[in-house]
Amino acid sequence: MSVFESPHRRYNPLLDEWVLVSPHRNNRPWQGAVEAVAGEELPVYESDCPLCPGNERANGELNADYQHTFVFTNDFGAIKPGPVPSTVEFSHPLARFEPVDGVCRVVCFSPDHSKTLADMAIDDITRVVYTWRQHYLELSNHYPCIHIFENKGAAMGCSQPHPHGQIWAHQHRSSEIEKENACQAAYFSEEASCLLDDYLQMELADGSRTVAENNHWIVVVPYWAKWPFETLLLTKSGLTDMGQLDEQQVEALAAILSELTIRYDNLFRCRFPYSMGWHNAPGDMEDKSHWRLHAHFYPPLLRSATVKKFMVGYEMLAESQRDLTPERAAHLLREVSGVHYSKEAQ
Amino acid sequence: MSVFESPHRRYNPLLDEWVLVSPHRNNRPWQGAVEAVAGEELPVYESDCPLCPGNERANGELNADYQHTFVFTNDFGAIKPGPVPSTVEFSHPLARFEPVDGVCRVVCFSPDHSKTLADMAIDDITRVVYTWRQHYLELSNHYPCIHIFENKGAAMGCSQPHPHGQIWAHQHRSSEIEKENACQAAYFSEEASCLLDDYLQMELADGSRTVAENNHWIVVVPYWAKWPFETLLLTKSGLTDMGQLDEQQVEALAAILSELTIRYDNLFRCRFPYSMGWHNAPGDMEDKSHWRLHAHFYPPLLRSATVKKFMVGYEMLAESQRDLTPERAAHLLREVSGVHYSKEAQ
Ligand SMILES: O=P(O)(O)O[C@H]1O[C@H](CO)[C@@H](O)[C@H](O)[C@H]1O
Ligand SMILES: O=P(O)(O)O[C@H]1O[C@H](CO)[C@@H](O)[C@H](O)[C@H]1O
Repeated sequence: MSVFESPHRRYNPLLDEWVLVSPHRNNRPWQGAVEAVAGEELPVYESDCPLCPGNERANGELNADYQHTFVFTNDFGAIKPGPVPSTVEFSHPLARFEPVDGVCRVVCFSPDHSKTLADMAIDDITRVVYTWRQHYLELSNHYPCIHIFENKGAAMGCSQPHPHGQIWAHQHRSSEIEKENACQAAYFSEEASCLLDDYLQMELADGSRTVAENNHWIVVVPYWAKWPFETLLLTKSGLTDMGQLDEQQVEALAAILSELTIRYDNLFRCRFPYSMGWHNAPGDMEDKSHWRLHAHFYPPLLRSATVKKFMVGYEMLAESQRDLTPERAAHLLREVSGVHYSKEAQ
Repeated sequence: MSVFESPHRRYNPLLDEWVLVSPHRNNRPWQGAVEAVAGEELPVYESDCPLCPGNERANGELNADYQHTFVFTNDFGAIKPGPVPSTVEFSHPLARFEPVDGVCRVVCFSPDHSKTLADMAIDDITRVVYTWRQHYLELSNHYPCIHIFENKGAAMGCSQPHPHGQIWAHQHRSSEIEKENACQAAYFSEEASCLLDDYLQMELADGSRTVAENNHWIVVVPYWAKWPFETLLLTKSGLTDMGQLDEQQVEALAAILSELTIRYDNLFRCRFPYSMGWHNAPGDMEDKSHWRLHAHFYPPLLRSATVKKFMVGYEMLAESQRDLTPERAAHLLREVSGVHYSKEAQ
């Protein structure tokens, strides 16, 4: 029997924390919440969607009559331009506080209300990647920490079905970037090599966690994945941030994003929900050699389109717990068709 | 204008991470997922509930015909007794692995299927606390890390409505306990005082984040709360773990648990979902003087019984974000009645 078949823990070297793996636990009964499946087809255009071309948004502005992608400042952004963070007088050493300076943008992926990345042509995904790169380059002149992400599906708090993501950029480094930076920097100084390069070599040699791969990118269910079908999308070219992407890397990225999102949709034959986002090296470091550009995909589903994994009591208060091994999850994602289920021959 | 009215960040000294606060953001439109409200009254006894007295569970065992509380080993536990964790040969330095040794128990709070802590008499909650203490004391002979927690409500992944919590105990320290321990120990060695004692003094002097208080306990919305109505339940008596509770502390704890859960229910007039759990000092430390016993309550609701806060894209990939200030949340929780809405005079 493999050691992986009994309860065990695995170490996440990017965040210096552990994950509990309980492969025997996948068959417990479920009488709790189930997710609604967005059954009906969406229309190509929706007159009251604030993201469709030409429509009016809550603040009275009109969207452009856009053909491909469209970016605007979030009308309800959590972050706004403000005073540059600096050490502030706080009333008590345990009441540390700092002002925030940044912007929140919305990135519409397509004028077609009914699409997701999984349905979009690779050419159109290429345009999304170029849009990400363009905004990364512009924003990096002002802000060292740029988060490019997508919440997909109502299960992931997405308030609008229209295909879109977000960009939040700010002066301060977010907590997650600080942690990943500290871990990658410590590894670099101890091992004199880059954590994610070494990890890439390990996965290339192993293969059991690989979901998709091309010349410039690899997708694995990481050894330390917490979400059942979590994946890590990693550069094979030593990139540190989105600003460095060349044409080949952009095109290869669009292709692998298409493949990954199609495999996700095919797994439970639904519009597979997830939150995904890029981790760029912070812009305010001279030496970025310890950091590699990567994206995390965190999908909530566990066993079907309606049964999700709840990261609750134990997970919130102790540590993340998963029911199937990462190797099994990767196997399932490899096994499904690479053609979207909606396009299968009947 | 208070500095707290603009977007800002606050520091969580227990976990060494920051939280983004966006007080202006509470009014954005919501077209996404809503929670189902468990409308109908539950029966006192449910013949197919695996937690009701006398019923058969999935593994064929019969529950005792219990009168107050009832504890059994989880038939689908994520952790099982196994080899004691030790340094294990792993195939690669980035594939760190350890076996897990521990137990998962289920703690039924009441034989009455229809109840929650918010409906239970304080005497009955006292029995729950004594049950926690008893199992803590027994398990601490074998395991240094004991997590006592409750997932309440389908929104928090609770698969059974019958009032119950869980106890997971294990040889290894969980990631969250390691982090809190490191933060409290570092503070102790720098400040020569206990982080949570100093924080207690700060909150006693301030009052704006206090929700409930008695001789032995205080409940605050912590300065660094991430969930909209997150609270911290903290010992005023310098306790380090559940095993130390004396009779007065048990009774005072039952009283404040009752008050807190009633205020929660009254906020949106619903069975208020949450995950809660205790953080005990790890048992494998000689000196626990830097640690204080506390519980965290993490409720998901934001604006009503059906609109919850989603900790998704930005929160998963960057840092936690909240829409109302902790001071405002505490104010709202203080403002509601201390009598459960179901018991109000009509
Ligand atoms: O053990 P339960 O109540 O069936 O399961 C619930 O609590 C566990 C511990 O927090 C989680 O791992 C599960 O995802 C959740 O659904
Ligand atoms: O900005 P949206 O899509 O309305 O909101 C969604 O994404 C945000 C960023 O992850 C979260 O803070 C919100 O909780 C979520 O509902």
